Amino acid sequence: MNDIRARKRLAVIGGGRPGRKALEEAREVGRLIARAGAALVCGGLGGVMEAAALGAHEEGGLTIGILPGNDPSDANPSIDVPVATGLGYTRNSLVVMNADAVVAVDGEYGTLSEIAYALIYGKRVVGLGTWEIRGVMAAESPDEAVRLALDQPEPP
Amino acid sequence: MNDIRARKRLAVIGGGRPGRKALEEAREVGRLIARAGAALVCGGLGGVMEAAALGAHEEGGLTIGILPGNDPSDANPSIDVPVATGLGYTRNSLVVMNADAVVAVDGEYGTLSEIAYALIYGKRVVGLGTWEIRGVMAAESPDEAVRLALDQPEPP
Amino acid sequence: MNDIRARKRLAVIGGGRPGRKALEEAREVGRLIARAGAALVCGGLGGVMEAAALGAHEEGGLTIGILPGNDPSDANPSIDVPVATGLGYTRNSLVVMNADAVVAVDGEYGTLSEIAYALIYGKRVVGLGTWEIRGVMAAESPDEAVRLALDQPEPP
Amino acid sequence: MNDIRARKRLAVIGGGRPGRKALEEAREVGRLIARAGAALVCGGLGGVMEAAALGAHEEGGLTIGILPGNDPSDANPSIDVPVATGLGYTRNSLVVMNADAVVAVDGEYGTLSEIAYALIYGKRVVGLGTWEIRGVMAAESPDEAVRLALDQPEPP
Repeated sequence: MNDIRARKRLAVIGGGRPGRKALEEAREVGRLIARAGAALVCGGLGGVMEAAALGAHEEGGLTIGILPGNDPSDANPSIDVPVATGLGYTRNSLVVMNADAVVAVDGEYGTLSEIAYALIYGKRVVGLGTWEIRGVMAAESPDEAVRLALDQPEPP
Repeated sequence: MNDIRARKRLAVIGGGRPGRKALEEAREVGRLIARAGAALVCGGLGGVMEAAALGAHEEGGLTIGILPGNDPSDANPSIDVPVATGLGYTRNSLVVMNADAVVAVDGEYGTLSEIAYALIYGKRVVGLGTWEIRGVMAAESPDEAVRLALDQPEPP
Repeated sequence: MNDIRARKRLAVIGGGRPGRKALEEAREVGRLIARAGAALVCGGLGGVMEAAALGAHEEGGLTIGILPGNDPSDANPSIDVPVATGLGYTRNSLVVMNADAVVAVDGEYGTLSEIAYALIYGKRVVGLGTWEIRGVMAAESPDEAVRLALDQPEPP
Repeated sequence: MNDIRARKRLAVIGGGRPGRKALEEAREVGRLIARAGAALVCGGLGGVMEAAALGAHEEGGLTIGILPGNDPSDANPSIDVPVATGLGYTRNSLVVMNADAVVAVDGEYGTLSEIAYALIYGKRVVGLGTWEIRGVMAAESPDEAVRLALDQPEPP
């Protein structure tokens, strides 16, 4: 397990009830994060969080879920390390605090709070069909989103 | 003191280093909140928070400051009831949780996180020269902002 | 209201379902805190918290309740300033963080967690029929408890 | 990684500056937890937390550290999954919330707060040279402590 600590950690944030396109994008973002050797951090519940964790699992990645409730078993089945907080929505701050960079997919006000916190904490935030906020880098595809979040050059 | 509990509570949120116009607006918002018989809730520190609390005090109002640090004496001098949380920026969620409605004046990413939380919690949010976010009611003046926040009809 | 900030703040902690003796002691502790001109901080709910707040109100005191839930109206009727946290039991840390000293009356594991936090934060803790923990000063009566908490000399 | 979620999680709590005996016991507790196939949860910093995590690593175990600060890199080198909270001492509640059972080794008031929270949350708490609190099962050795925490029968 000793290499887990060395991995970059990317948070994927987004709504609990997204449309089909956002779900597919989130899952692809999860796959790409795992393929890049990074760990995925998310809020641990359904919707974008679950799709991204599922994608990461498909590629053998590690997934961490920072939960609002106080029971680790609330996490979706694709979370390897559920972290209960009992903080309710206030835990949104902790989701992005635990990432090196953030990919936002779709999302409602909860996602907006996480974008705001990520920017407060000086983390890079890449958006995919999400809130247009000064400081968020817009991406056109899951591939571009994960490359930007990992600060990797575009392929030739 | 027994009437304190019955008062409406309005949060004033905004940046710690605003320009002169925002400071003057925040102070006037504070005055109007106190004049309306409502209590003021804020983050307890400087800038918009301090100007609003000062304005409320000028009109004999009660002010509550929800602080990021763990020392109640961190609060600005116009706070009557400082509440230390030790939660850092994560306390932003608690500021708006403790208000019936919110007035946002100017502000940076911290204010954005508070706007997001207020909307998550279903509170009315009125904006005065702040982030333009779906769900935030824009006001043109401190007077309009406080009237909207208190859900009061416009004067004839 | 400008004198509120200057008051000492004493937390009264204790169980939600105490026996009659503990309830009477808590109420008397609340009365004595108010009579001494100090504000009362507590967890805002029932049992010892409610009895102490009721006692403080009987003597015209100010009462602050730091609540586990996210709705300020959860507070018992004798709380002037309810502060919602949404932190669940984790809010116990905030109760004692907001006091200059602490009086513990009776109490179960929640009270034990508050005693521990008060001692972590270096606050004086006076116990009245509560956990016997190194660092807690034992008192024999509400009067002695409040005098010790306020660090006042015994009357001649 | 898919088996990580299925593991039992044991928290090891204890002071940041223990004596040599407590450090050796904590390390042995960590080894035994890993050998039993359980994951180790702790506060992520030094002293008992670091010794237990080191022991778990010696046996190839997984270690999770719930940190008080907001920087995951604060964790000691034997933590695989650091979780920053920014909650200060208030994070003690989250350490035990994320465990199925708790082993307390030595410890000061921070440990006492964690013991209290574990008992609030209905978790089994086993003590090794720690606070004597009603509800804590006393163990005489690391081996007995881990067996009791995992609710395993004594070997013949």
